[in-house]
Amino acid sequence: MSTASAMKNTGHSRASICRGCWDQMRVPIPIRGPLALPFRAFGIGRSKMNPNICTICERSFRYVKKKRHITARATILFADIRGFTALSERVETVRLSECVSLFQDRCAQAIWAHDGIVNKQMGDGLMAIFNFPIEIKDHASAAIMAALDIQQYCTAALRSLSSDLGALPGNAFGVGVGIHTGDVEIGEFSSFRSDFTAIGGAVNLAARLESQAQAGEVLMSLETATLAGELAKGAETRLLQLKGIEQPVQATVLISIDA
Amino acid sequence: MSTASAMKNTGHSRASICRGCWDQMRVPIPIRGPLALPFRAFGIGRSKMNPNICTICERSFRYVKKKRHITARATILFADIRGFTALSERVETVRLSECVSLFQDRCAQAIWAHDGIVNKQMGDGLMAIFNFPIEIKDHASAAIMAALDIQQYCTAALRSLSSDLGALPGNAFGVGVGIHTGDVEIGEFSSFRSDFTAIGGAVNLAARLESQAQAGEVLMSLETATLAGELAKGAETRLLQLKGIEQPVQATVLISIDA
Repeated sequence: MSTASAMKNTGHSRASICRGCWDQMRVPIPIRGPLALPFRAFGIGRSKMNPNICTICERSFRYVKKKRHITARATILFADIRGFTALSERVETVRLSECVSLFQDRCAQAIWAHDGIVNKQMGDGLMAIFNFPIEIKDHASAAIMAALDIQQYCTAALRSLSSDLGALPGNAFGVGVGIHTGDVEIGEFSSFRSDFTAIGGAVNLAARLESQAQAGEVLMSLETATLAGELAKGAETRLLQLKGIEQPVQATVLISIDA
Repeated sequence: MSTASAMKNTGHSRASICRGCWDQMRVPIPIRGPLALPFRAFGIGRSKMNPNICTICERSFRYVKKKRHITARATILFADIRGFTALSERVETVRLSECVSLFQDRCAQAIWAHDGIVNKQMGDGLMAIFNFPIEIKDHASAAIMAALDIQQYCTAALRSLSSDLGALPGNAFGVGVGIHTGDVEIGEFSSFRSDFTAIGGAVNLAARLESQAQAGEVLMSLETATLAGELAKGAETRLLQLKGIEQPVQATVLISIDA
C-alpha cells in the first residue's frame, strides 16, 4: 500500500505531501513540514480549494494532465443558502456577511473531511468536486456524507443567526444541496484564468437539483443514489421537471434530521 | 489631472501602474514594463480579474482597505449562456468546452474594455463588478455598455458554433445579462480564500434579473436605468416577479440588435 493510499483512510488528515499531485502524477510535493519551505519560496503552497492539495494542482492543470482539459468521472455537489435573497431584503448588508462566512467555512470543513475540493464559491453558494484531483474510490458516498455534514454543521448555526436577525421562519432558512455523478470535462476553460473547474451536462444537472432542494434537503440523482447503495436506500424519491432538461428526473431526497 | 485619472479616458488601455491600488490607496504599483519586474519576483503581477489591476488588489483586500469588508456603491453584472443545459444534453461534453471558452473570453474583453472586473466565473456564467477596485464615475453606464458589447461579441460566435453542433434553434441559444446598481458588501467572506467578492441584496437582484433575461436580452433594474439616462431611455419595461423578492421589480430591457 502506497503512502498516499494509506493516508486516504484517515479522513481529513493533514497530508504532508500534495494528495492531488500524488494521485494524478505520482509526484511527491511537500506541503507541510520543513521540506515544504523551499517550495513555498517558489510560490508553491497549499491550495485554497483543499488544504491537502497544492497550488500546482490548482493552477497548473496543463502541467499536471498534459492537456487543456480531460473527461473524467466525478461527483459534483452544489450547496446554497435557501432564503438568502429574502433575508438580504430584511437585514443590513453588513450582517449578511456573517451568514455567508459561516456557511462557506462550515461547508468547506465538511467537504474537505471527505476529500472533496471547494472549486467555486459564489456569495451564498458553492460548487464542490469529488474524485479530482484527489482520487476517491466511492466518490458518490463521499459527496453524500459531506452533504449530510454540511446540513448538520450549518442548520443550527444559521438558524440561531437568523433568530438573532429577527428574520425568517426557520423552515424557509437553511441550506439546499444537489448532487450528481457523471462524466464531466475538467480543465481550464478561459484563457486568462489558471484555476481548473468542471463543466458539462452532469455539472448543470447537479446545479438544477440543488435549485429544487428545500432548506435542510439533499437532492441526488438516481446515478448517485445507486452508486451510494446503503446510504440512499429507502429514502424518498421525487420526480422533478428541471429547467433545460427534457425528461423528468428522478431525485432521491435525504432530509437533515436537524432541519 | 493625475496620471491615473488621465488613463481613465483611454478605455481599455494597458495601464503601467495598477489602477486598483491607485484608486483605492494612491499607491503606484508597476504592472507593466521594466519597473514591474522586481514586483513580479515577489509574486505581485497582473490580476486574472482585470489585467489593469494587480494581485495585491485581488488577494490582499484587508491590506488595501484595512478592513475585512466595506460597504460600497457598485454596479453588478451577471451573464450566462441561455440554452446551455439543453445543449449539454445534446452534444459531447468536450465540445461544450469550446462554447464556454468562447463565452468567457469574449465577456472578459467586453468587461475589461469598460473597466469592470470579472469577479467570478462559474461554468457558463460569470459575475462582474463595476466601480471596485477601479473607480468609475458612471458605473451604471459602463456596465450597460459592457453588456451590449457582450451581446455583440457573443451572439454571432455562439450561433455559428451552435449551428456547427446541429444543436438548438437560434432564438433559444445566446447570452442573457442582468444588471443592478446598489450598495454591496465587498471583501473577503471565507477564512480560506483571499480573493475578494461582493455580496448582498443588490448582488442577488442582479442575479435574479439575469435569470429572467432571454437570449440576446439585457435586463436592468430601475436604479441602473435611471443612472444611465440616455442609454436606457425609451427602452421596453417589464414587471417581474422574482424569487425571494416580495414586491414585483420593474426591469428595463435592451435587446441586442444581433439577436
